[in-house]
Amino acid sequence: MAQNIYDDPEFFDNYARLPRSQQGLDAAGEWPAIRALLPEMDGLDVVDLGCGYGWFCRWAAEAGAASVLGLDVSTKMLERAAADTDDARVEYRREDLDEVELAARSFDLVYSSLTLHYLVDVSRLFVVIAQALREGGRMVCSVEHPLYTAPSRPAFFQHDGRIVWPLDEYSLEGERITNWLAEGVVKQHRTVATYVNALADAGLAMTRMVEWAPTRADVDAHPDWAIEVHRPPFLLLAAQLS
Amino acid sequence: MAQNIYDDPEFFDNYARLPRSQQGLDAAGEWPAIRALLPEMDGLDVVDLGCGYGWFCRWAAEAGAASVLGLDVSTKMLERAAADTDDARVEYRREDLDEVELAARSFDLVYSSLTLHYLVDVSRLFVVIAQALREGGRMVCSVEHPLYTAPSRPAFFQHDGRIVWPLDEYSLEGERITNWLAEGVVKQHRTVATYVNALADAGLAMTRMVEWAPTRADVDAHPDWAIEVHRPPFLLLAAQLS
Repeated sequence: MAQNIYDDPEFFDNYARLPRSQQGLDAAGEWPAIRALLPEMDGLDVVDLGCGYGWFCRWAAEAGAASVLGLDVSTKMLERAAADTDDARVEYRREDLDEVELAARSFDLVYSSLTLHYLVDVSRLFVVIAQALREGGRMVCSVEHPLYTAPSRPAFFQHDGRIVWPLDEYSLEGERITNWLAEGVVKQHRTVATYVNALADAGLAMTRMVEWAPTRADVDAHPDWAIEVHRPPFLLLAAQLS
Repeated sequence: MAQNIYDDPEFFDNYARLPRSQQGLDAAGEWPAIRALLPEMDGLDVVDLGCGYGWFCRWAAEAGAASVLGLDVSTKMLERAAADTDDARVEYRREDLDEVELAARSFDLVYSSLTLHYLVDVSRLFVVIAQALREGGRMVCSVEHPLYTAPSRPAFFQHDGRIVWPLDEYSLEGERITNWLAEGVVKQHRTVATYVNALADAGLAMTRMVEWAPTRADVDAHPDWAIEVHRPPFLLLAAQLS
């Protein structure tokens, strides 16, 4: 199974302090771009893979979803999600996404935010997603962009008077160990092509790709985001069962 | 129109000395990966956008294509292509790909190698390609990878004991001026997402993406290619009229 870093006390405490943990979807820079990829939620059966605190699950229910199933491997996240949710249409369940099974033809929308880069085998999950979707069903996900996960030393620095991102090892897929919020966080680096081809192989036709970067308005509101135009932090993918 | 650098005498002379110019397709590292994306050529009507010396046009005809039309903006390239070709199935024509029109439903395969990153408007060309393809027709193209075109100073260097590629300005699309084979070569940087979404918008369903990097066997045969695993030089896209 993938590392369950979210149940690590240090990681969990630091994660809890992030703006997106405290303020939810609107504090996530990429949320407007994700929302633009989502279908109308009215009457949909939705599953959220890696639901965390349940912010999206509650939003989906409020937006009209018929049912929302939130899955996560972290017991701590699920406890907090359940405590924060008071909606009979939302259900949470502990699942390891490297081994999850989903009922066939049961969902209209599969959603996943910043989770798949922890999984060892994304191809298997895309096949599970494809068989769980109803005809015409959609998948919308975000992952840490492969440009973000690739480098052996992922940190901007000054070079020759410019800010640069030290890209290396892009084509060498596999484990990356970083010290984000805690020491020894294990992520799985894979290329953009690997994500895209795994979707196609699973019968999920990609309808949109977004390499998220801040807009001018984003930078005006959050000057510290400006650096992200040099290297997109998030990759968003929308696909439909073909 | 896009810059016609191939008719620049210095560029043309330096280009003529590249292995792929002198020895053809087999001297291009990415050719085996491109070939794997191509359909059986038997009986196909093919157009090559940016045909250069005509290496691919001659290969396609020898592989059984019914007709091959090679288009290029460079008079010098076309003269050399015509001089090197003795096959009635192959025809060459001068065209500016930023303005080209193609007869409707006339081709089974549109091919383009390392050309589209010179074009100002790739969306327009993808629409032209889509209407020129017959039902089920395919497009296979390679471009300089957006990671290759993005940086303001595109050259590997040593940082902290490692070789890194100084990525910056990835999300800032537009002109890039480099000094490859000649001074002041103008390319158009666009993101991976822009290529992919332009295909989808034109009704071309992407079937495969390859971010080309050398294999272990490639590196054994060409040790100087090893550095390319840090930053893929070529992006290959295969799509089918949907």
